[in-house]
Amino acid sequence: MDKASIVVDPAFKIGDIDPRIRGSFVEHLGRCVYGGIYEPDHPSADEDGFRTDVLELTRELGVTAVRYPGGNFVSGYNWEDGIGPKADRPRRLELAWKTLETNQVGVDEFAAWCRKAATEPIMAVNLGTRGVAEAAELVEYCNHPAGSYWSDQRVRNGAKDPHGVRLWCLGNEMDGQWQIGHKTAREYGLLAAETAKAMRMVDPSLELVACGSSHRRMPTFASWEAEVLEHTYDVVDYVSLHSYYAPRNGDVASFLASGVDMDEMIEAVVASCDYARAKLGRSKRIDLSYDEWNVWYSGGSWQDTVDPWTEAPPILQDEYSVMDAVVVGSLLNSLLRHADRVKIACFAQLVNVIAPMTTENGGPAWRQSSYHPMALAFAHGVGAALRVEPVSPLVSTPLYGDVPQLDATVTYDESSGAVAVFAVNRSLTEPLVLSADLRSLPSARVVEHVALFDSDRDAINTKDAPDRVVPRTQPAPSLADGRLEAELPPLSWSLIRLTTTPS
Amino acid sequence: MDKASIVVDPAFKIGDIDPRIRGSFVEHLGRCVYGGIYEPDHPSADEDGFRTDVLELTRELGVTAVRYPGGNFVSGYNWEDGIGPKADRPRRLELAWKTLETNQVGVDEFAAWCRKAATEPIMAVNLGTRGVAEAAELVEYCNHPAGSYWSDQRVRNGAKDPHGVRLWCLGNEMDGQWQIGHKTAREYGLLAAETAKAMRMVDPSLELVACGSSHRRMPTFASWEAEVLEHTYDVVDYVSLHSYYAPRNGDVASFLASGVDMDEMIEAVVASCDYARAKLGRSKRIDLSYDEWNVWYSGGSWQDTVDPWTEAPPILQDEYSVMDAVVVGSLLNSLLRHADRVKIACFAQLVNVIAPMTTENGGPAWRQSSYHPMALAFAHGVGAALRVEPVSPLVSTPLYGDVPQLDATVTYDESSGAVAVFAVNRSLTEPLVLSADLRSLPSARVVEHVALFDSDRDAINTKDAPDRVVPRTQPAPSLADGRLEAELPPLSWSLIRLTTTPS
Amino acid sequence: MDKASIVVDPAFKIGDIDPRIRGSFVEHLGRCVYGGIYEPDHPSADEDGFRTDVLELTRELGVTAVRYPGGNFVSGYNWEDGIGPKADRPRRLELAWKTLETNQVGVDEFAAWCRKAATEPIMAVNLGTRGVAEAAELVEYCNHPAGSYWSDQRVRNGAKDPHGVRLWCLGNEMDGQWQIGHKTAREYGLLAAETAKAMRMVDPSLELVACGSSHRRMPTFASWEAEVLEHTYDVVDYVSLHSYYAPRNGDVASFLASGVDMDEMIEAVVASCDYARAKLGRSKRIDLSYDEWNVWYSGGSWQDTVDPWTEAPPILQDEYSVMDAVVVGSLLNSLLRHADRVKIACFAQLVNVIAPMTTENGGPAWRQSSYHPMALAFAHGVGAALRVEPVSPLVSTPLYGDVPQLDATVTYDESSGAVAVFAVNRSLTEPLVLSADLRSLPSARVVEHVALFDSDRDAINTKDAPDRVVPRTQPAPSLADGRLEAELPPLSWSLIRLTTTPS
Repeated sequence: MDKASIVVDPAFKIGDIDPRIRGSFVEHLGRCVYGGIYEPDHPSADEDGFRTDVLELTRELGVTAVRYPGGNFVSGYNWEDGIGPKADRPRRLELAWKTLETNQVGVDEFAAWCRKAATEPIMAVNLGTRGVAEAAELVEYCNHPAGSYWSDQRVRNGAKDPHGVRLWCLGNEMDGQWQIGHKTAREYGLLAAETAKAMRMVDPSLELVACGSSHRRMPTFASWEAEVLEHTYDVVDYVSLHSYYAPRNGDVASFLASGVDMDEMIEAVVASCDYARAKLGRSKRIDLSYDEWNVWYSGGSWQDTVDPWTEAPPILQDEYSVMDAVVVGSLLNSLLRHADRVKIACFAQLVNVIAPMTTENGGPAWRQSSYHPMALAFAHGVGAALRVEPVSPLVSTPLYGDVPQLDATVTYDESSGAVAVFAVNRSLTEPLVLSADLRSLPSARVVEHVALFDSDRDAINTKDAPDRVVPRTQPAPSLADGRLEAELPPLSWSLIRLTTTPS
Repeated sequence: MDKASIVVDPAFKIGDIDPRIRGSFVEHLGRCVYGGIYEPDHPSADEDGFRTDVLELTRELGVTAVRYPGGNFVSGYNWEDGIGPKADRPRRLELAWKTLETNQVGVDEFAAWCRKAATEPIMAVNLGTRGVAEAAELVEYCNHPAGSYWSDQRVRNGAKDPHGVRLWCLGNEMDGQWQIGHKTAREYGLLAAETAKAMRMVDPSLELVACGSSHRRMPTFASWEAEVLEHTYDVVDYVSLHSYYAPRNGDVASFLASGVDMDEMIEAVVASCDYARAKLGRSKRIDLSYDEWNVWYSGGSWQDTVDPWTEAPPILQDEYSVMDAVVVGSLLNSLLRHADRVKIACFAQLVNVIAPMTTENGGPAWRQSSYHPMALAFAHGVGAALRVEPVSPLVSTPLYGDVPQLDATVTYDESSGAVAVFAVNRSLTEPLVLSADLRSLPSARVVEHVALFDSDRDAINTKDAPDRVVPRTQPAPSLADGRLEAELPPLSWSLIRLTTTPS
Repeated sequence: MDKASIVVDPAFKIGDIDPRIRGSFVEHLGRCVYGGIYEPDHPSADEDGFRTDVLELTRELGVTAVRYPGGNFVSGYNWEDGIGPKADRPRRLELAWKTLETNQVGVDEFAAWCRKAATEPIMAVNLGTRGVAEAAELVEYCNHPAGSYWSDQRVRNGAKDPHGVRLWCLGNEMDGQWQIGHKTAREYGLLAAETAKAMRMVDPSLELVACGSSHRRMPTFASWEAEVLEHTYDVVDYVSLHSYYAPRNGDVASFLASGVDMDEMIEAVVASCDYARAKLGRSKRIDLSYDEWNVWYSGGSWQDTVDPWTEAPPILQDEYSVMDAVVVGSLLNSLLRHADRVKIACFAQLVNVIAPMTTENGGPAWRQSSYHPMALAFAHGVGAALRVEPVSPLVSTPLYGDVPQLDATVTYDESSGAVAVFAVNRSLTEPLVLSADLRSLPSARVVEHVALFDSDRDAINTKDAPDRVVPRTQPAPSLADGRLEAELPPLSWSLIRLTTTPS
């Protein structure tokens, strides 16, 4: 059997893992809000109309931060539509997704939901059809204690305490021609800088994310980042990245190597940020917010599946196979591997819309296959990411050439001594022995090896078979003379947990 | 004793003095509005809540025009917040100065105050967070007789007659990165041109001021003016200039020569306007509006002195010494000396905020030292400014090299025959004999010589000693054989008044 | 005694060390060529006029590649002046350094010297006063076998075999206003691209270096690299870096931390290259040629020391102290530490001109202090550079803030098993214990510890005391339980050599 090896040594640390890389995204899109987090008529709904089954799954998943309210949606959104008495809120034509928006959920509801979900809100402002003033006013509404026009409105609307939103996105995908109010890099950079300035005048404690490229194949990729940062460097903290993956033309081998693309995307954006730093002669660094990422199949065709201007249509409800879940696990590896610069990441989206959980209106909520690697990586990928230097057989891919068969990341939690090895076997057919040199951790003991794989790589979870795809406990890896060996099934994602004596 | 000489001859005229060069500025900043012009609980308050003591001092000062409502304030201002029933007006977070704005004074109150103060309003529109429509609507509100949405609102709010505001500023200091909604010259030029167009559609009789540079050391100085005028030349009448002076690191010699800097600033902006004229092939000339000027000490530190988001905090309340008053007199000379192109000037600000008058809440109002040269120059610097060609000893300055010890301007009122000589002795230690050749004015007779100076150059006026610094009548200058001789004390500002037989 | 620690593990490799990072530089400047490598009247001169004492020291130093003929010189150089019968060669006013150039050494002589010195020539072409054709012709002259105009000239001039110059520099410091024929990034990028294209048409096997910034404080730093690469990315292989260091205003602490600046410079240029790669969507990477680096004191004053238009004046003949040698050692660490991207480096210059060797005309040649860390690092810094993660006390520096007291790099030669630890103690006063974890190399045995340091940090080597500053063998470091401990004297550079069983 082929073998791949890594060396695990806490002396070689990439960086501390920011908890906010365990983030998600809730957009007013399809059934993510209505029928997803919010469904007042649902048997499980609480007094605020939130589905408690979805709240429970969210807490179980360990989501630390949720971006809201879009997405493309935000570029046409008037946040004032979503406050005040629900009966008075306008029904709007929502242009980005061609739906009818009832505004029954707005910023106050979302903030309340976040408190119940034990997660931090990340708010995006509209820089498509609106600008500086409306963004500053939303900050005032959310974060100013009281005594001013908008903060008093919030109190009047029932939220006595400020929502305390720290992290804000300056628009969404403003480089994309599909975006309402799409802008050139120069236009966006100038607007984002002025908006950032005014938002910080209201609340100097904010952290701000400038829009980066919508994906790596945008014609302005990299130059967009550099030019936007030329205008915004001193007033923002992060630049955003978005990536979605799916097999093209049945090219499953490349699909399984999607993490290679994500790695390159991250490294290119880091280069662009550090180029801007050098050019401007600054010492501060701009870090990365990977605030949309996932596997996504249905991107091109959603408009054909529903009538326009309906409420909460069931669109973009991708069903994820075990293969997709393995790719999700691999993308999580890429994020962890860049813990030194990727400080925020949001899988898109939380529920129903290309999401790890699905609900039925009036019916149950269940975990998709991709829920499992996320939940396990969120629970155990904590502390610091370690530098590992895998030596691996290669597999061929049409898009990325020869890539390592093993995709591995290791995290180490200094306080508890816990070590987690996250390993993907990218081969469709061959098992792989993972050999890990643990000589620097003589106290290491194996806790468990769980793996996600299936003889049918297209297996999915459904309402009727919600546990068709779940992690399975594997035989305990051998560990002798400081060397661990574990078998990784073909096309699989694995978590191998170890304990060590805390340092 | 050193001597400096000038020749006074009405044949050599620089230009007629526009009365609006005697303008001031009222911004919603600190205690300029609230506790300054408006304090309903004050013993002197009239039925509209205006302090009559401040009104009296304003009329006495001879202020011909007052710019309003900002300043940096205007770039985040919604003028609609300041109309209608006072109890309904919103309390806003005012971002430029981090105060709580109650909106108890708005455009209707300001127009009413101007009528009482016998002064003309100059209105600025918000081109930071707002644009074309809101500016045109404000013109409609102010100037349209009745019968339209906004003019009817004005009538409903109690102002049957239009306010008739002729002169408007297209934003404020839009070249400054501190400005809310700061813009590039191109962005601003395009926006200002469209705004001007729409405002003139409402009222073709308007005169419009485009924003020039915020000060002479801005990195875009001169190129800003040229690029803005390229877009706006045909739809504006003036370009603005702002300058504030204070001694840096104790360099009093340069401070006393601040007028040299103001002269250079004016000449550079005239050149920029005429460059645009030549480039565009136009015959019309753009004139200058020096709509913020003064001595200002407290610029850098105001944020440390008060809590944010309080109402009308006592910020920027500079106290002016006799030396500061002499510099103010010298700056007035620079303005008069450029009467051919500087048509509007506004000392900043009217009361309490870097101002020639100070009030106490509930207490008195008094004249600062700088009030006096303003009042005298405003009263007597009328008619035409004459070209004088001073021959003077020099004084050394670190910033401007050798400069003339004498800074002199002469005005001549053809209708009355009055002549006024304004003379500053820039030496800190030496008196100076001013010798004026009056042979072209054989009927000239001396009326008086008043001077501002003090053995203590740091002397100031206070609530308890409001007349510590006042002009003092000097011995009558000699006048024989068409030659006048007068002694100017060290560090002094003088006005020598003559009568002649009207021509 | 303070302690700093590193972990040495061949599993964590930065990259293989390109032998060409052991390069040097010979410019027609001062006495580098005439009186340096070439002095026909010298007792040691060989039949070609080359000083054999300098040849011997060059071979001993282990120089792998030598850049020629400039430097600033090249931007005014006609290479044809330096070929053919020596008596016929023109005497030229050399503008860059204001000397009289006799052209007794040219490309054929230099190629012959390189063969004797067992080093590879790196040739620079003139993109200051010349362009595409002359560069292509020089390639033809050097590399084309025979049968064409210029190759036949070479043969006629005595060089039957082509010189086979593989590596070429496309001009020199073209971003510097001091450069003859200085260009904007766009001008240079376009010219360099066309020149590269034509040169490759003559000989497709060339490797080409585009000019980067002349130093990190150039106003166009980073944007120059990005713009040049935008035009040249597909036709060049490397971008150049230049850096020289000296204490400013006696700030020795910052001087000792010069490697921090070099690290930042390298990382900024890597970011700029990778930014260009991302922007252009290329997969190839551009690597770095640090083709001028050293300590340099005499930069500002050389013009005062000699008459212009003399032959081979003794300028820029810096004498290097032991402190300077320690800094040189630290700069070598920075180069090794970036072995993944820095593929070429040339200390400047080889002899007499800011050089590690000095000669007297007609007299001896001797090693300066800086010769020694170079010779040892060149001999033992081979194989791969390993990632070490030093944990070190900090020292304060005015320019770079707190920096690690220990500057360490480790190299590992897989074929021989040799390990070399290069360590600088940046403290001026305190010794430091270096503790190295060698647990991954159980077969490691200490060979030796040699160190460069002196109680007098200003000690230098001279003609009469050429061995005043030499490396000294230190007590053998302890090595037990996989942990090595060695003491590093204050202000010292050390090499600790180990053997291991080859893997």
